Amino acid sequence: MKNQYVIGLDYGSDSARALIVDVNTGEEMASSVKYYPRWMDGKYCVPAQNQYRQHPKDYLEVMEATITEALAKCDASVAENVVGISFDTTGSTPALTDANGTPLAMLPEFEENPNAMFILWKDHTAVKEADEINALARKWDVDFTKYEGGIYSSEWVWAKVLHILRKDEVVKGAAVSWIEYCDWLPAVLTGKTALKEVKRSRCAAGHKALWHTDWNGLPPEEFLVELGPELKGLRENLFEDTYTSDEAFGTLTPEWAEKLGLSTDVVIGVSAFDAHMGAVGAEIEANTFVRIMGTSTCDIMVSPEDELGDKLIPGICGQVDGSVIPGMVGLEAGQSAFGDVYAWFKNVLAWPLQFIEDKDQAKAIEDKIIPALSEEAIKIPVEESTILATDWLNGRRTPDATQNVKGTITGLNLGSSAPRIFRALVEATAFGSKAIVQRFLDNGVKVDQVVAIGGVAKKSDFVMQTLADVLGMPIKVARSEQSVALGAAMFAAVASGAHKNIAEAQKAMGQGFEKEYDPIAANVEAYKAIYDKYLKLGAFTEKEL
Amino acid sequence: MKNQYVIGLDYGSDSARALIVDVNTGEEMASSVKYYPRWMDGKYCVPAQNQYRQHPKDYLEVMEATITEALAKCDASVAENVVGISFDTTGSTPALTDANGTPLAMLPEFEENPNAMFILWKDHTAVKEADEINALARKWDVDFTKYEGGIYSSEWVWAKVLHILRKDEVVKGAAVSWIEYCDWLPAVLTGKTALKEVKRSRCAAGHKALWHTDWNGLPPEEFLVELGPELKGLRENLFEDTYTSDEAFGTLTPEWAEKLGLSTDVVIGVSAFDAHMGAVGAEIEANTFVRIMGTSTCDIMVSPEDELGDKLIPGICGQVDGSVIPGMVGLEAGQSAFGDVYAWFKNVLAWPLQFIEDKDQAKAIEDKIIPALSEEAIKIPVEESTILATDWLNGRRTPDATQNVKGTITGLNLGSSAPRIFRALVEATAFGSKAIVQRFLDNGVKVDQVVAIGGVAKKSDFVMQTLADVLGMPIKVARSEQSVALGAAMFAAVASGAHKNIAEAQKAMGQGFEKEYDPIAANVEAYKAIYDKYLKLGAFTEKEL
Repeated sequence: MKNQYVIGLDYGSDSARALIVDVNTGEEMASSVKYYPRWMDGKYCVPAQNQYRQHPKDYLEVMEATITEALAKCDASVAENVVGISFDTTGSTPALTDANGTPLAMLPEFEENPNAMFILWKDHTAVKEADEINALARKWDVDFTKYEGGIYSSEWVWAKVLHILRKDEVVKGAAVSWIEYCDWLPAVLTGKTALKEVKRSRCAAGHKALWHTDWNGLPPEEFLVELGPELKGLRENLFEDTYTSDEAFGTLTPEWAEKLGLSTDVVIGVSAFDAHMGAVGAEIEANTFVRIMGTSTCDIMVSPEDELGDKLIPGICGQVDGSVIPGMVGLEAGQSAFGDVYAWFKNVLAWPLQFIEDKDQAKAIEDKIIPALSEEAIKIPVEESTILATDWLNGRRTPDATQNVKGTITGLNLGSSAPRIFRALVEATAFGSKAIVQRFLDNGVKVDQVVAIGGVAKKSDFVMQTLADVLGMPIKVARSEQSVALGAAMFAAVASGAHKNIAEAQKAMGQGFEKEYDPIAANVEAYKAIYDKYLKLGAFTEKEL
Repeated sequence: MKNQYVIGLDYGSDSARALIVDVNTGEEMASSVKYYPRWMDGKYCVPAQNQYRQHPKDYLEVMEATITEALAKCDASVAENVVGISFDTTGSTPALTDANGTPLAMLPEFEENPNAMFILWKDHTAVKEADEINALARKWDVDFTKYEGGIYSSEWVWAKVLHILRKDEVVKGAAVSWIEYCDWLPAVLTGKTALKEVKRSRCAAGHKALWHTDWNGLPPEEFLVELGPELKGLRENLFEDTYTSDEAFGTLTPEWAEKLGLSTDVVIGVSAFDAHMGAVGAEIEANTFVRIMGTSTCDIMVSPEDELGDKLIPGICGQVDGSVIPGMVGLEAGQSAFGDVYAWFKNVLAWPLQFIEDKDQAKAIEDKIIPALSEEAIKIPVEESTILATDWLNGRRTPDATQNVKGTITGLNLGSSAPRIFRALVEATAFGSKAIVQRFLDNGVKVDQVVAIGGVAKKSDFVMQTLADVLGMPIKVARSEQSVALGAAMFAAVASGAHKNIAEAQKAMGQGFEKEYDPIAANVEAYKAIYDKYLKLGAFTEKEL
């Protein structure tokens, strides 16, 4: 067997990871993680208004840094035998572009304008626009949202683009198209940045941009213009076709090949969103519920086309043919805040640490908060866990997307300590998970097993055991520390021809599972009643406040 | 005019204060505050179960320490001319006693048993027993709770005593009576500790022990035994008469006179609860709503007997003839947690400070939390204050006492910072205040003015302005730093004969007001809608969860 290597590039919310993998054995040769520098400085974001923007230069800078650092950790022979690179990214994270397909913030005149940057998935400035899209979709003769769960989210591209065009006249004057960064990054590496050359990801377009073969691509111009005259003309600068991630986008440009120390023969694959590739890295197969558990969760299932048939699952993020594995329908759901709920609480608790003069000391204490809370919270018996919370601190992605809900903590008394509140927040995120599983089950989608990947799955026994108890299902945790990047690497292996298809790549490169959390029967029983209260509390705050 | 001095002894939740006052001018000659040593070590308390107990020795130790320290700050001539001492205390804070009237925890065999100690007002271990008292009162031919707002609280003596007698066989075996510490402390100083010699406070007995002249004192034995056979026989070791606080309890025993450096001629007055005496110190008159704002609030009004007539105000803590000013009906209400809500949040935020090795540094940071939160929270405009909370972290005292309610915080998102949550908590305590004022107004009790005293009133412009905005009423803050102790001193002046009556004592010794908070019209308007949501949220959590 010839030694061949692929690079999976996983772009998360805070950082990007490059993972070099042996296509024959799945051995993870080296990896490198770099944080987005401007983002880590808190630039361009207004958390109180849910505005989260990322600068395109952040993406490019870490791309070069992670790939070269990862390669530097390997023998020189590895770089010589890299055959493919594939990206996965967060999404929907779009930016407006000029006629050359360049995100506006890359132009000097827009470089400090947050409206010209990529609008991170969790930015919720476009709540009103999402509502308008839903209202118009209900009235139109074709419901363009029907493959996206019937509810368009403010996290998705059309709402975001419409919001920015309305809000920022200068950006509007310069914008002629938009692009997801999952499509922009391979375009940059291959030099195919011209609007008509970009191979748009099926996953991104199908799940977020209302693209479907039923209506020959994106919704028609008249629908978009009815939504907002600001959208006029964008469509003709967008796309008709989309591509699954087993396809090649192109090959490395000479400039990037030199920068990265790789050959110009290296194939760059069509991208997809992180969860979809992560599910492949975690060896998804039919009826496996894969959860990528980080700041938020993305939940992915695949269903053979003939098994799902015409069924439409309401209130999920979408069902798109080929968005995960070509030939199967990818079903996406998720929670808009998962680890972010814990991080929020950590930030609240860390507020007084600003008064510590020694910033290293303050940081060290801040880093202890979540592990120490978990250690205390796990000791609290379920029957003493009388605080009840909902997990909607970033709105609700599924079931039934809406940004018009907020988080709640109730059952508080003077003895409600930080660990007790933390326990309730962890339970709340688990209840949010249960609501999603329940939606699949209620619609006849069989869930045979749960597989978890992502930071939270790896790091927190407490969270995972609580989740198993609330779901009443065992949960397997994938062994790879970097399943999402591994999934991208599997796609790179297929796109570059090193493997014939995803199933073959999974078989050769998959890493199996390291742990299984079995539900504790007594807790499963106790949580049933608490889950009912969670639903009741959620329904009240959603409808009445 | 002869120089004469009185000492007001104010026993709060954490500490006692002795205040020496000139009876002719009201000049505050000196004061001393001492914290209860065992209490400050967190002994005998289980906050998560709402168990709060105080050791009688804590009370005695600080009594000697505060009085002698305050006297030491004055010329020797002051001690020679002290004519009276009166106590005010928290309540209902009772302990079980033996046949000599000694609180059981004073006996060696019970000295470490929390059930033998004083059960602090905010202890809520007797929720079930309070429910039973209410259920039985509804069935009995006479409603013994009718002068206590129609709802008996778990904060009050009969619920607490019944709970302890049921729970602790050993204590039950030794207990033959009970006593409020407001009655025990003057009994100790005068040596009149024998059960039949104690002059029980009208205020305590009328507001908390179901004592009323309509049924010739305490409820009959058959009612008590029906409530719980454990109560059998207690009544005959209790009392028939009660006394208003303008009366003398006795004079100093030689032992205490020597310990304190005072004459045996010093008159000890009959006690009352802190809020009632505080209202007098703050120059209460008819239709003045006086709020003592500390860890909780006590709210006091007085109504001339002929003006109130037969009216019963439902859901307040009680209406007792002479509980504040002899000859007028004292109306009591209050919030079970006010400053405690802020202290709770401070404690939650202080959780990570345990990881600071230098305990002095940690303490200094902890002390900064509330002032710093206030400074940030006051900058948030009302229209941006989208977090909504209820203040029931210690149950609800009024209107409509119940311990079966808890606190809630809703409207949370990832941008909900500590100062924003703090603002919502402050608003919640103000909404709780409004619910009380509204209850008085709805029942035809006129509220002409609001006067505030207590730590929170003095310390927090932010809290006071928010309260004025939510109530839509101006609030005057009493000038004295120690209005409650000053009120006790006024009673000491009357009990010892230095003044004829309370009105005369108030005129001579009152200190007036230092500040007025005027409501800001725009905020008053904005808070009306938010208050409606507060009521809605509260009703949901109370009824449905």
